[in-house]
Amino acid sequence: MKTLWMTGLSGAGKTTIATGLKKTYPKIVILDGDDIRTGLSSDLGFSIEDRNENLRRLIEVCKLLNKNDIPVIASFISPFDEMRVRAKKEIPLCKIIYVKTSLEECENRDVKGLYKKVRNGEIENFTGITSPFEEPTNADLILDTETTSINECVTKTYKAFFENKDWSI
Amino acid sequence: MKTLWMTGLSGAGKTTIATGLKKTYPKIVILDGDDIRTGLSSDLGFSIEDRNENLRRLIEVCKLLNKNDIPVIASFISPFDEMRVRAKKEIPLCKIIYVKTSLEECENRDVKGLYKKVRNGEIENFTGITSPFEEPTNADLILDTETTSINECVTKTYKAFFENKDWSI
Repeated sequence: MKTLWMTGLSGAGKTTIATGLKKTYPKIVILDGDDIRTGLSSDLGFSIEDRNENLRRLIEVCKLLNKNDIPVIASFISPFDEMRVRAKKEIPLCKIIYVKTSLEECENRDVKGLYKKVRNGEIENFTGITSPFEEPTNADLILDTETTSINECVTKTYKAFFENKDWSI
Repeated sequence: MKTLWMTGLSGAGKTTIATGLKKTYPKIVILDGDDIRTGLSSDLGFSIEDRNENLRRLIEVCKLLNKNDIPVIASFISPFDEMRVRAKKEIPLCKIIYVKTSLEECENRDVKGLYKKVRNGEIENFTGITSPFEEPTNADLILDTETTSINECVTKTYKAFFENKDWSI
């Protein structure tokens, strides 16, 4: 019964940290925004209604997995505070991790080449540039990937949650 | 990468057999019609469009779990052959199990008291009575719970699939 909900800009390092945790705890399932958008939520767009429905489905999948004793790392930009508040409220054991990386740094990394596309006008409604990212008000852990290495982020997450017996895997 | 898709009337014994398999292989996740209808698909009704959308989501969840090396038993009435054909086509490693129990026997058992409610006119569109159940044309295994005990059904399923190395857990 446990979900780690990771929020942060595209390129902040969410999936990299999640993958690092999964290496140590292979039982963890990573739910990733791209995966869900091309699969379970492929029928949805980005209107407010569709974003809400996408979030509802994500929460249900987390609950379903947790109910089956499968821990989840939900790695989603989830730019609005309302989303994170709802996730934490509706998933019985849920912690919010804010992967805090500045827009400038994310754009410098531009691992997927998305920021370049946004600047070229090829992508509309991109979080952090043409669409807002609200900083979380309910983060249980903040990871600053500009001052902390990925390995350290993984260790910090481990110490914050997995040494707690309710969360032990 | 493996899903066992169980089809059969309400009360046929799908969930009981699935639970028996899970006792031996705790890693298996059981996806059950009631669970999904009250959770992930709680926004859907029973129109053709909604049934199709429900099926699409189920298939996506099976794929997501299988991708994470989690075997699934999908326990759904899934009354139409088209549904089972689609599941088998879209899920990379999927086997169809037909839990074949006569309507008379299911109604005699009436574990959830649903058949009584149907006969009293309290439930409309109930598979087997007021809505059709098409026998599967693509079953990989047929389990007849009237002539085979639950333990034997579990063993038969095990022998049919889990002794195959592609399916070993």
